[in-house]
Amino acid sequence: MSLPLDDRGLLLGDGLFETLLVIDGAPVWWGEHMARLRRGCLALGLPEPAEDDALACARQALAAQPAHPRAALRLTWTAGSGGRGLDRPANLAPRLLASLAPAPRPTDTLRLATASVRRNAGSPASRHKTLAYLDNVLARREAQAAGADEAVMLNTAGEVACAAAANIFWVEDGELFTPALDCGVLDGLARAAVMARAATLGVAVSEMRAGAEVLGRAEAVFLTNSLLGLRPAATLDERRLNRPPLLDALADGLF
Amino acid sequence: MSLPLDDRGLLLGDGLFETLLVIDGAPVWWGEHMARLRRGCLALGLPEPAEDDALACARQALAAQPAHPRAALRLTWTAGSGGRGLDRPANLAPRLLASLAPAPRPTDTLRLATASVRRNAGSPASRHKTLAYLDNVLARREAQAAGADEAVMLNTAGEVACAAAANIFWVEDGELFTPALDCGVLDGLARAAVMARAATLGVAVSEMRAGAEVLGRAEAVFLTNSLLGLRPAATLDERRLNRPPLLDALADGLF
Repeated sequence: MSLPLDDRGLLLGDGLFETLLVIDGAPVWWGEHMARLRRGCLALGLPEPAEDDALACARQALAAQPAHPRAALRLTWTAGSGGRGLDRPANLAPRLLASLAPAPRPTDTLRLATASVRRNAGSPASRHKTLAYLDNVLARREAQAAGADEAVMLNTAGEVACAAAANIFWVEDGELFTPALDCGVLDGLARAAVMARAATLGVAVSEMRAGAEVLGRAEAVFLTNSLLGLRPAATLDERRLNRPPLLDALADGLF
Repeated sequence: MSLPLDDRGLLLGDGLFETLLVIDGAPVWWGEHMARLRRGCLALGLPEPAEDDALACARQALAAQPAHPRAALRLTWTAGSGGRGLDRPANLAPRLLASLAPAPRPTDTLRLATASVRRNAGSPASRHKTLAYLDNVLARREAQAAGADEAVMLNTAGEVACAAAANIFWVEDGELFTPALDCGVLDGLARAAVMARAATLGVAVSEMRAGAEVLGRAEAVFLTNSLLGLRPAATLDERRLNRPPLLDALADGLF
C-alpha cells in the first residue's frame, strides 16, 4: 500500500492521527480514540471518518501482521489530495490509513529533559494529534542529545505543557497536578483515565497553568499516554525523582 | 509515483520543502533554494540531498508535465521511513520528491486578514519550510472565512511574523519594515531580493520586532514569495491600503 504524492498529509501535515494500544488483537479505548479523532476533525475543518470504514481499515491492518501480545495501531486521517498550495480543494476526500507495530511495555528507567522547543499555545492544532508533529520530533531529539529518553515541553508562554509523546503529571506535597488543556495540550485518554482513577482514590487533581519551576520542586513526575499507561520518571534534568506509592495506586487497573 | 506509508514526512511532518518558480521550463533561484534546503537540513538534523539527485529529480518532474509559461516546482525532502514513533532510525534515508503545477501570476486584488492562529516563535521549525505546515493551512482558512485571500500571522509573542505563505513588509512614513527573522520567519528568497533591491534604490529596510499595531498604522503592506515576487495588499482587515510608487520600483526587475 502506498500514498499519492499530492496527499496534503504528506505535503503540509494536513491531517490527524490516533495511536491505539492493541492487546492480544483487541484495540483498547476504540470508541474514545474515534471520538477524539472526530473532535480533531471538527477543530481542523475536516470531514469525519465513517466508523465502519475505520473499523474495516483497522481490522485489515490487524489481520495483515503477525500477532503481538502488545501492539500499537496507528490510524492516520489525511486531508486527501488536491487544492492549490495551502488551500484545500472544494471537495475534500480524506484518506484513512492504518498500520500496526509491536509495542512492548518499556521496562527501563525514564529520564526526562526539558527541551528548548516550545509547544505552540497559539494554535488550535496543539490540542490535537495532527500530522504536523515536527516540533515534538525535535523536542525528543533534543532530550536524547542531552542523554535523556523523553522531552518535557513548555508552551510558548513558558508553562509546563506535556512530553513529546505523552501528557505529564507531577506530585507536590502529596497533591497531584497536570497542565490545563488550554496550555496547548492533547486531551490524552490515559490522562483522563488517571484523573478518573485519582477521583476514585479520593485524590484531587489540579489542572493548572504553571511555569517550569513547579517541576523543579516536584517530588514525583509521571507521563501518561495510550500506549504506556502511566510511566513514572526517574529523573528530570538529571535531578532524581521519587516514586511514591500513589503512582502505583493510580496505575493499578489502568490497563 | 507514490510513497510508502511509513514515511516520516507523512506520519510526523518530519521533512522540508521548497517551492520554485519555473519560467519557460527554467527554475528561478535554483542555487538559493538548494542552499536554503541545506540550511533547513542542518536545523532539523537531516542529511542534505545531493545536488545531482535534486537536479535529476527536478528535471524528471519538468519533463513529465506539459510546458507552462509559469509553473511551480515543489521539491519535498522527507526524513524517509523507519524509526519508532517520534524517534528517527539510526540510519536516515530521506526521500526526495518533485512535482510541478501551473502557477499563473495572480491578477486580482489581495485582501489580507489577521488570523488568530499564531506562528510558533519557540520552535526552530518556524524559520524553515517544513512539512509541518498545518498552522499555515489553518491561518489561511481563517482568513478566507473572513472574506480575505491570505492571512497575516502574528507569532506567539504577538509580533508581526508573516503571511500564511509569504513574507510581509509594510511602509510607514515612506520607510520600509519587515519582521526580523528571529520572529519565527522564513528567510524568504524574495524577501532578500526585495531588501537588496531597496538598497540599490537607497531605501533602508528595518528588520524589526513589532506588534500588530504597526500594521494598523501602515500606509502600504505587501507580501513576497518565490512564486509571486512582490504582491501589494489592497486591504488589511478591511482597511484600505495605499500602493505608493515605491512598491512598483521594488518589484521592477524582481523576475
